[in-house]
Amino acid sequence: MVKGWHSHGVRVQYHETDQMGVVHHSNYIRWFELGRTEMIRRAGISYKEMEELGLLLPVVDVRVKYRRPARYDEDVLVYTRISKLSPVVMEFTYEVRSFSEEREDGELMVSGVTNHMWINEDWRPTRLNRRAPEVYEQLEALLSE
Amino acid sequence: MVKGWHSHGVRVQYHETDQMGVVHHSNYIRWFELGRTEMIRRAGISYKEMEELGLLLPVVDVRVKYRRPARYDEDVLVYTRISKLSPVVMEFTYEVRSFSEEREDGELMVSGVTNHMWINEDWRPTRLNRRAPEVYEQLEALLSE
Amino acid sequence: MVKGWHSHGVRVQYHETDQMGVVHHSNYIRWFELGRTEMIRRAGISYKEMEELGLLLPVVDVRVKYRRPARYDEDVLVYTRISKLSPVVMEFTYEVRSFSEEREDGELMVSGVTNHMWINEDWRPTRLNRRAPEVYEQLEALLSE
Amino acid sequence: MVKGWHSHGVRVQYHETDQMGVVHHSNYIRWFELGRTEMIRRAGISYKEMEELGLLLPVVDVRVKYRRPARYDEDVLVYTRISKLSPVVMEFTYEVRSFSEEREDGELMVSGVTNHMWINEDWRPTRLNRRAPEVYEQLEALLSE
Repeated sequence: MVKGWHSHGVRVQYHETDQMGVVHHSNYIRWFELGRTEMIRRAGISYKEMEELGLLLPVVDVRVKYRRPARYDEDVLVYTRISKLSPVVMEFTYEVRSFSEEREDGELMVSGVTNHMWINEDWRPTRLNRRAPEVYEQLEALLSE
Repeated sequence: MVKGWHSHGVRVQYHETDQMGVVHHSNYIRWFELGRTEMIRRAGISYKEMEELGLLLPVVDVRVKYRRPARYDEDVLVYTRISKLSPVVMEFTYEVRSFSEEREDGELMVSGVTNHMWINEDWRPTRLNRRAPEVYEQLEALLSE
Repeated sequence: MVKGWHSHGVRVQYHETDQMGVVHHSNYIRWFELGRTEMIRRAGISYKEMEELGLLLPVVDVRVKYRRPARYDEDVLVYTRISKLSPVVMEFTYEVRSFSEEREDGELMVSGVTNHMWINEDWRPTRLNRRAPEVYEQLEALLSE
Repeated sequence: MVKGWHSHGVRVQYHETDQMGVVHHSNYIRWFELGRTEMIRRAGISYKEMEELGLLLPVVDVRVKYRRPARYDEDVLVYTRISKLSPVVMEFTYEVRSFSEEREDGELMVSGVTNHMWINEDWRPTRLNRRAPEVYEQLEALLSE
């Protein structure tokens, strides 16, 4: 029942391509990062401020499926949603699609999932609902959108 | 029964780190590419020459698990082995470990799997054993090492 | 008398930082590329289409001065102008400044210059005014803006 | 009279290329960084340890000249030498050349210069000969080699 897709536009830059003439496969993972950062920003949460509070959300797991590559100068949309949320872990799901008004109408190029864990400044696991309850609530609101 | 780990040394460069003080998670995927390229080179196959013959091996799927991050200037070893081989697809498995004489003695930092498909210059699937039988044999030899 | 600054906004991404906590110095050169691409796009010229016509504009020279670094999540503006134009070469000048309504009010972080040469698909120098006179005219218009 | 070229081998990786089929121009600057790091390492100085002592050497100026590009899988040598050294600033000069036994025999692809300033953990200029006199002496020895 999870809806809540947020989209962020990306125009493919020259340095992101490789000699196969397409975006190098490592770069989509950077777009995923951009997607989740911009998604939570719209919920009023700045990842930068969380880091300044000593809350880090490193990636513990990445999965990516490549269907068709993006090309130089192409306008794509990075769709992101929170697919799992607990006080200790988060999961985001992504779709990179060609530009289109409706998500379903844009051709699916790349999809992926990242898993994350909340840690503190000593790189120890931490519980978000205790450490920053208001952030946890904002993320829960995003999830149930 | 698959053994056949091949190792390749990497020293972490400054631009590969991020402000968390560790290697950015997207960069391990670039090390995986380095690992598989150097592995097949030692089997006498140059990926560059294959491309010139019109044989491409794009990534169709990536999975990465992050355990502990590599840090600036650290000497790590990227271990690679072929975990699946057919005339149409290949799978490589990777382990990034701290430097050590024996693989098992190096601390495991990051592990991963990539899946690939053989395609021709028109981006159509192709059968490696027909298109370049000698390459297919060399890869089979690597697999059964 | 050259005015004609064009601005393009960039938000600093996590992977662009390094462990010094600032944008890695190599990345400003990628922002310069973005700046000139978007500048000429607004003049109605797509670098992608030029490439498809066999017209390439490689960089032959880069100079960059670093004053103060950009930081994660910072909103910066990349200002670009054409500082030299002939049928065979082009020069662009860049300023990366903190976000501000007026260019002069934004703090100058990084400045730079890139020189380029028009070449054809065989990597031979070519004369833009013969090869694509309408593109040359559009660039001249940008220059005299 | 400055001699003292130190060389470091680099094999061009796939992700370093762009759709022009050559190394993206921003990546040579990363090779320069690699060149100077490995050069001073051979003099017994670890840039990592200097950072841990609170001594940073940020880039204040970069100049690069591109003659002919490096290509995927090519073996190149990054030559580095110290071209200026004082207690407050350093300058390195670089040449990227095709692989060859003698420096002069390798084809020159890219050349460059970077200027640096010694700063402390508060990003204030600092005098290396006071802060770390033994490092300054080792660098002087490198210079007069």
